[in-house]
Amino acid sequence: MKNILIIGGDGFCGWPLSLRLSNKGYNVIIVDNLSRRKIDIELGNNSLTPIVSIHERIKAWEDISGKTIHFHLLDVSKEYERLVSIIRENKIDIIIHLGEQRAAPYSMKTRTTSRYTVDNNLSGTHNILSAIVEVDCSIHMIHLGTMGVYGYGVVENSTLPEGYVDVKMNDGKGNYKDVTILHPSYPGSIYHLTKTQDALFFQFYARNWNIKITDLHQGIIWGLYTKETLMDERLVNRFDYDGDYGTVLNRFIMQAASNLPLTIYGTGEQTRAFIHIENSMDCIELAIENPGKESNKVEIFNQMTETHTLNTLASLIKHNIEGVMIERIDNPRKELKANGLIVSNQKFKELGLCSICLDHVGIKEIYDYIMKYNSKINKNCILPSSKW
Amino acid sequence: MKNILIIGGDGFCGWPLSLRLSNKGYNVIIVDNLSRRKIDIELGNNSLTPIVSIHERIKAWEDISGKTIHFHLLDVSKEYERLVSIIRENKIDIIIHLGEQRAAPYSMKTRTTSRYTVDNNLSGTHNILSAIVEVDCSIHMIHLGTMGVYGYGVVENSTLPEGYVDVKMNDGKGNYKDVTILHPSYPGSIYHLTKTQDALFFQFYARNWNIKITDLHQGIIWGLYTKETLMDERLVNRFDYDGDYGTVLNRFIMQAASNLPLTIYGTGEQTRAFIHIENSMDCIELAIENPGKESNKVEIFNQMTETHTLNTLASLIKHNIEGVMIERIDNPRKELKANGLIVSNQKFKELGLCSICLDHVGIKEIYDYIMKYNSKINKNCILPSSKW
Repeated sequence: MKNILIIGGDGFCGWPLSLRLSNKGYNVIIVDNLSRRKIDIELGNNSLTPIVSIHERIKAWEDISGKTIHFHLLDVSKEYERLVSIIRENKIDIIIHLGEQRAAPYSMKTRTTSRYTVDNNLSGTHNILSAIVEVDCSIHMIHLGTMGVYGYGVVENSTLPEGYVDVKMNDGKGNYKDVTILHPSYPGSIYHLTKTQDALFFQFYARNWNIKITDLHQGIIWGLYTKETLMDERLVNRFDYDGDYGTVLNRFIMQAASNLPLTIYGTGEQTRAFIHIENSMDCIELAIENPGKESNKVEIFNQMTETHTLNTLASLIKHNIEGVMIERIDNPRKELKANGLIVSNQKFKELGLCSICLDHVGIKEIYDYIMKYNSKINKNCILPSSKW
Repeated sequence: MKNILIIGGDGFCGWPLSLRLSNKGYNVIIVDNLSRRKIDIELGNNSLTPIVSIHERIKAWEDISGKTIHFHLLDVSKEYERLVSIIRENKIDIIIHLGEQRAAPYSMKTRTTSRYTVDNNLSGTHNILSAIVEVDCSIHMIHLGTMGVYGYGVVENSTLPEGYVDVKMNDGKGNYKDVTILHPSYPGSIYHLTKTQDALFFQFYARNWNIKITDLHQGIIWGLYTKETLMDERLVNRFDYDGDYGTVLNRFIMQAASNLPLTIYGTGEQTRAFIHIENSMDCIELAIENPGKESNKVEIFNQMTETHTLNTLASLIKHNIEGVMIERIDNPRKELKANGLIVSNQKFKELGLCSICLDHVGIKEIYDYIMKYNSKINKNCILPSSKW
């Protein structure tokens, strides 16, 4: 039985992942500082779904499955020595690092939230890598990154490769030589910036200490539940729909459910990558089973299954839910007015990933599910409150 | 009179720079946490030259020049609000950021020094950028980086460009499109790594907030004194020669002065870039006077004037100082056994930089100067104590 440490195991990805891996027979240890719940308190927001405390969640899972998940309340960006002890004492084989502040709008909200995002994400990632060097360089580290590291429009109509890109580089004398480089990064927010800086940590630690590192450049997750979170009401996953933490699809569906117009930022011709939450869990399992073959090269996957423009998304919802209106508002973000987005996800496909497509069934399913909590919707938090 | 904040103004570059700029009529405010002196205490090392406290230095300068330099004891990586106040209250026009842990060997010494380097350098740089956004986006920020961000040997025999490189990028369909990108980074230590991550901070802050940022990729400094530090004994600059903070040239000369063999790490065919300390000050002055013309593009200069292999350096010393022996030791660092290094420094040349060449006169001058302090040499600290 492998010992797996899930940093951020109480979060939106971390909780269903903890259940999935516990269900599959891994010994799951969660480390979390519960910052996502605390930020909700600060912003005056809340998950639409009534999530119970981490302690109750774990108890519920034990009741249902007979399996134990261990939890340590710990801030990996600040409590280095305790992190080292937990990795050592639990003989950890695999670390899944989901312990970062993950909302672009929150990272651009104020100077305080920008600085928090930088300090938390960078010191956290580095402490984890440092702890691996200190305890055991054979631990496999898997990090959840973002498709947003690549930026849009470096080369128009190009297909985004998986992490590395082939270029011919000018040698300064006008000759061009073939080299493969880490794809240049064009982050669109402080949050995305920290992920591009994480990528440099990974490159160095893989090269210098031969640590097995996998970086997953994930698209926007859609979908509400996984097989495991459906097993008991107390296992329900969080559902964010506010202007800071809610994804575009969640915000649109909540607007539909509240008889509000869907608000498209700007032209709506921005294209984004998506993946269903169950597929996201599938990908992480595949990443666990398939560490990179070259010992000093970071393994990078694009973790997404399809792309849509905001306009297409809004239309899909309009066509499946009666009475939906669409409104355009000024884009609160600095980004391209329109962008194409063609992405290679060949590597997960070759490992057998079976895509769940975003279609009318998926939309309707989410809509019906959240309508159960209709009375709890806070309509005032959906519109953007962070601008840059 | 422009108000200039020198972060790290008590350090090896910061102190002569503070004197130079004060002499030139700038209103100089130093912020420093005095960490370099504190690290000396921890390592049991000391500057060969008898540097006096920052308070005495400033008093001496006032005695001699009639000019006042202001000093604030402050850690920019931890005391954000005070940093903001100092920038605001002093109506700062230009910030020179030298406030980073700057020794590669120290950054690779222990997990504690690695983590300190990361946390100090990244949070510090980000706090400064954040404070500029908070106070006044028209402040010009100048950062001292390193030639080491480029790495060696990406494209053999290429000329390293100044920050950006022209490439033809594969669009994923086999077509190659022309783009200019930030030069890919291949840091050789945790210290160098933080500089490559700084570069990503700069790219984002310049693009998102149109801040004028200049990044100086500096080579190894040689030379001991500047016109101003020679004016009074109390103004003397520090001279490091230990295995962590001493540069290769300093260590060689100290070995020569101590009748020890010069120790070459590995083959000695590693090539490094160099610049005289007076030229380094010239470059920073030129950078102050010439902020980038494109508002959202980071201005990048290569701040070096010549390159030498370790073998050439050792030979130069052997030929100019009697009785010098050379010894080869295992390279304590992970680096290429041999590398060419051709660097463009066109931009500073075009602005009028007049190179001071490392020759027998320069070597002899340093040698004679440090022989004054011969009795204080600690021979035990010269050999490498950090390995990676």
